[in-house]
Amino acid sequence: MGFKRIKLVIEYDGSFFHGWQVQNNQLSVQGEIEKAIFKITGEKVSVTGSGRTDAGVHAFGQVAHFDTQSRIPAEKFAVVLNTVLPPSIAVISSKEVSPDFHARFSAIKKTYKYKVLNRPMRSPIMDKRAWHVPWPLDIESMNRAAAYFIGRHDFTAFCASGHNVKNFVREIYVSEWTEEEGCFVYTVTGNGFLYNMVRIMTGTMVEVGLNKRSAENIPELLEKKNRRLAGITAPPYGLYLWEVFYDEENPNGRPGREECFGGDDE
Amino acid sequence: MGFKRIKLVIEYDGSFFHGWQVQNNQLSVQGEIEKAIFKITGEKVSVTGSGRTDAGVHAFGQVAHFDTQSRIPAEKFAVVLNTVLPPSIAVISSKEVSPDFHARFSAIKKTYKYKVLNRPMRSPIMDKRAWHVPWPLDIESMNRAAAYFIGRHDFTAFCASGHNVKNFVREIYVSEWTEEEGCFVYTVTGNGFLYNMVRIMTGTMVEVGLNKRSAENIPELLEKKNRRLAGITAPPYGLYLWEVFYDEENPNGRPGREECFGGDDE
Repeated sequence: MGFKRIKLVIEYDGSFFHGWQVQNNQLSVQGEIEKAIFKITGEKVSVTGSGRTDAGVHAFGQVAHFDTQSRIPAEKFAVVLNTVLPPSIAVISSKEVSPDFHARFSAIKKTYKYKVLNRPMRSPIMDKRAWHVPWPLDIESMNRAAAYFIGRHDFTAFCASGHNVKNFVREIYVSEWTEEEGCFVYTVTGNGFLYNMVRIMTGTMVEVGLNKRSAENIPELLEKKNRRLAGITAPPYGLYLWEVFYDEENPNGRPGREECFGGDDE
Repeated sequence: MGFKRIKLVIEYDGSFFHGWQVQNNQLSVQGEIEKAIFKITGEKVSVTGSGRTDAGVHAFGQVAHFDTQSRIPAEKFAVVLNTVLPPSIAVISSKEVSPDFHARFSAIKKTYKYKVLNRPMRSPIMDKRAWHVPWPLDIESMNRAAAYFIGRHDFTAFCASGHNVKNFVREIYVSEWTEEEGCFVYTVTGNGFLYNMVRIMTGTMVEVGLNKRSAENIPELLEKKNRRLAGITAPPYGLYLWEVFYDEENPNGRPGREECFGGDDE
């Protein structure tokens, strides 16, 4: 019997979940979406995300796919799922894609943002939505540091240890700090990310902004490939998976994609 | 024995509270601040706000004052209070002011913002922080409507009934819609506001944006002074008390201030 593959774009407030991935007896985004699909179709499906996000990490544009035999039109899934999903998750769009499409392996680029609230006092409105750094940050030197990440590098120094990855080389296309609504916001786009990579890059750049290390330390860290020399891992609740990019004309992607998207992710 | 008067600037996430004002057995912002002051000084003080905010309404810059005999330096109150306040409330600054200063009666202007999320799907990240209007809004006609509020008008049509106010005349200095981070944001500054005034103005302008009424209906509503002819009351969780302005050189304010700040507020 035929099935169709549906692509979902998903927003969630990560502070309510133990991360994207289904885990025993823990509230997960994936689990809530699978439950919602069961409620409306009666099908027990497995939802595949573009990558995991840790507990507390938010998403504006997580992408996932699943297969269904339901007659609900693909575009209607978003509206119908939102009626049964909790307020902390919403499907922004849904559409039918080729059975070759894979949320993880077809991805060609991802954008993350990281929000830092930089002022003396904490902010109730930004609670669990930004990292509060109360000491003044030098955004110019942070931007000098950010520029060193652009290009193709070995990110071993910026990857949490204990994970089963072989290739630590990733290419970064965009890496910059801007100021938005009283926060410093780091935007990074790359062809793939290692586990905790954006959070370690952010923690290291915040140390640059606090004058604890110089921007010129970044190329040295990339060179030395030693996690211990890099900075702290910034907390999860400032991180947003912003957008996942696909070449939908060519969902099988480019050769060697699994090198970047087969390993652990943020 | 001498006392000093302290002015606080306060931010809070209104979704956690039954409003600013202390009510029987309900969680209120005022009550939490009074408890926090008691914890650090041992004094049972009464905290006076610039005005009430309803359940769900947020504040970036609520102002309040209280009197204390504590030896804690005025500027330190902010830091110390934040250590005992819940994450949903923070004191942004504290300072000593003249005993003539009154958070409500000395205020000369207030700014509110109202956030409308205008897209088909709801947003988990903006849940309880913006009003979700899923149908397309015409921001140009909403801005034409907003401009009619500028100046000195009788706002009877934009005041919830059943409140003990005699003078419905208020002066509006700024009234405009802008686009910020995917939301339409209404900014309004005036010399005072009636109960639910900003929410009824917003609800009415959203009806203009949906083409349910024309922008040119606003002067007519101001003229006819009938609440029933105006639009719906926009929900509380999109509203932010943004800033309260004072002439601190002259805390007794201008004559007739109680006309604007003696009545009920948002």
